[in-house]
This record gives sequence, structure tokens and C-alpha cells, in this order.
Amino acid sequence: MGEGGESSAPRRGPRPTDTAWREQILDAARREFGEHGYQAATVRRIGHAAGVDPKLVHYYFGTKEELFTTTIAETFRARGFPALLAQASSPPADSAGTRYLLAVLTALEDDTLGPGFIGLVRNLGTHEESRRIFVRFVTGELIEQLAPRLEADFAEARVTLAGSQLLGLVMARYVLKVPPLASLSIQQVAQTVGPTLDRYLFDGLPLHGNIEAGNDQRP
Amino acid sequence: MGEGGESSAPRRGPRPTDTAWREQILDAARREFGEHGYQAATVRRIGHAAGVDPKLVHYYFGTKEELFTTTIAETFRARGFPALLAQASSPPADSAGTRYLLAVLTALEDDTLGPGFIGLVRNLGTHEESRRIFVRFVTGELIEQLAPRLEADFAEARVTLAGSQLLGLVMARYVLKVPPLASLSIQQVAQTVGPTLDRYLFDGLPLHGNIEAGNDQRP
Repeated sequence: MGEGGESSAPRRGPRPTDTAWREQILDAARREFGEHGYQAATVRRIGHAAGVDPKLVHYYFGTKEELFTTTIAETFRARGFPALLAQASSPPADSAGTRYLLAVLTALEDDTLGPGFIGLVRNLGTHEESRRIFVRFVTGELIEQLAPRLEADFAEARVTLAGSQLLGLVMARYVLKVPPLASLSIQQVAQTVGPTLDRYLFDGLPLHGNIEAGNDQRP
Repeated sequence: MGEGGESSAPRRGPRPTDTAWREQILDAARREFGEHGYQAATVRRIGHAAGVDPKLVHYYFGTKEELFTTTIAETFRARGFPALLAQASSPPADSAGTRYLLAVLTALEDDTLGPGFIGLVRNLGTHEESRRIFVRFVTGELIEQLAPRLEADFAEARVTLAGSQLLGLVMARYVLKVPPLASLSIQQVAQTVGPTLDRYLFDGLPLHGNIEAGNDQRP
């Protein structure tokens, strides 16, 4: 725990193997961010709910921004999302993209983290901290996890294309609540949009030119 | 012009056939919204730039919100966007979705309206007026224009699905500027994402159940 809470100082105190406390704090954080949204959530309340000194929360997880990023990332990782998406499809009715969307939409609608994540997406355009958390999440948890598993070329471009469809879906369905998209069942959305993710991730795409270097090659 | 500016009163003053002034005001509005964004734009400056009394702007176009909606809608309509999208594809390399995206992305990157529209998308989640303008635009200009032209079933759901991909693309490329998506050429993006729009609009989709009534039928 210790008074040396600066992130640059060597870390002292409880070992990373003290996973019980770690899990307790993450559970409390998930609930706090879900109930109050990122901006209104406080590390003090998270500490109290977890039954630990808020300093311990900072010790383990850094700033509120870092804690939120970790909370989202661990929730997604615990549900095996990157792995789900990287498995190439077998029967078309249950493709990788479809399974992934079923898992994501179920999490967004049922989990205590759903409202917190939707709140983050709502604030993306206007709240710099939210933008930073989201981009860090997408880069660290989706692009970096998924891209090396994809055997296709242009892996990073593929993941960001899939991410753009997912982001637009969350915006349209949960933030703007555009009818009739908002009233489709999770199953309908997953089976309709899933093949889009499959195509971006696994199929041949007309991505010619040196795109990683941002080379703008127009015909 | 007249003092009877209430929108419920019968309209007096210049006829709708006075299209020169109407175009002048729309041009000035396009520039003002593009330069200052929706929130900072003023009808007073638009009037001055168009060389007319701001009251005339209100007379023709109503509130600032209504003027902005009209400005976006007319720009899109002038470029024939809804018609472009409703034409079924002929050669796959130049599908309806691809042509539509080429036109939209070119408008967003080159036109004076681009920054205004991107600013609207940026504010969607947190600014109620922006959300209202965007939903009205999507409903009036995309869903209502396109849905009746589509011969496929579930026309409205199809248009909102295509809209979700378009919205996510604009967010990821222009608001969040996620690499490497932000550095692809317009051509690359249009040819990669266009087939997604085609599929949502024209192909067979697994949209079973009474979706228009919001019936949540899960298997």
C-alpha cells in the first residue's frame, strides 16, 4: 500500500498474487462505473464498496482512467472476446463474427458494465478522457490482441474496419436508439451484422497500396 | 419578410420561387456551419454573408436547428446521394454502396460542409440538439427516401443497418482518427466498406420475426 504511490516509483506492498483483493476491487469498480458512469464514478466509493482503503485501489490500478480501462479490458478478456473473434468460422449460421456479437451485445445489455461502456461511447466525441480510454482499449485489447492472430494480410486495418461497424452499431442501437435497429433482438443483430465482421477479418479485401504508412494511393 | 415570423402563421413575403436568395442563404449557411461548427454558428453572420436581413433567414428556414438540417439535407440531395444508394449494383467493382461511399467521403473531406457534419457527429452522444438534427436527417433523408425505393423486405431495418456502418466509419475515421483506418484512401475505404452497405440493402438477411413492432423473438 505504502505512501510511495507515484506511478514511477518501484511498487511495494501486496503482491500481484493477492488476487482476491484485486478481484474484489474490479467487481466494485464494474458496479460503480455501471451505476454512475465514468465521469461521476469515484475511486473513494469503489474502495469503500470493496472494503479496502482507496489508496490500495490507486496502488493496484493507478488513476481512475487507468482503473476504468483495466475494468473494461478484464471484463472483455474474461469473456474470451478476442479469442472468439479470431477463430475462423465453421458453419455460416454460427460464424466467429456472429458469436462475438452475441457475446458483446449480451454483455452490453445484461452486465453491470454495460451502462458504463455505453456511457463511454456516448462521450467519445466530446470528452478527451473517454476518447483516450476508448482508443487505448481498442488498440490494446482489440488491435494488438487480434491482429497477430489473424493470418490474413492488413491485419490492423481489418480490425479497425470491424471496430468501426461495432462502434456504429453501439451508437445507433444504444446511444441514438434509432428504430427499428434498436428493437431487433440480439440474435437478429448478431446474425445480420456478424458476417460483416467475418468479411472484414477473414476475406479478401481490396486494400492495395502501402496503407500502414498512410500512403494515399488513388487510381 | 414581415413580423409574423411564427412558424404556425401563414407565410407571407418573398415567394418560394425566389430561389436565388434561397441558394445564397444556403451557401452562406454551408460556409458558416463548416467554419464554426453548429454550436458556434450564428444566423446573424449567415444573413450578413448572404447579404440579407437575418430575419429573412428565419422566415425562409425557421430556427438555426432547422436551417442546419435543411443545409445538410439539401447538400446531400443535390449530390444525388439517396438515388445513388438505391440503384442496385451492376459491376461488383463499382457497386451502389461503393459509389455512395465515394460520394459521401469526398463530400466530408472536400466540401465546406464536411467539418460541420463531422462536428455534428462528434456531438451526437452529448448534445441533444445535435442528436435531434442527426436522427431527423437520417430518418427524413435516408430512411424515408431510401426505404420505399428498396424492393427488398425489412427496408427500414436495412437502411438503419447501413447507417450504423456509415456512422461508425465517420466516427472512427474522422472523429477518433483511429490508425490505420484514418490513413486509407477514400477509394480503399469505399471499395472495402461499400459491399457491406450493398449486403445490408439488397441481400437476403436473417431478419425473421415481427421486427417493425419491436417484437423480440429469440430462438
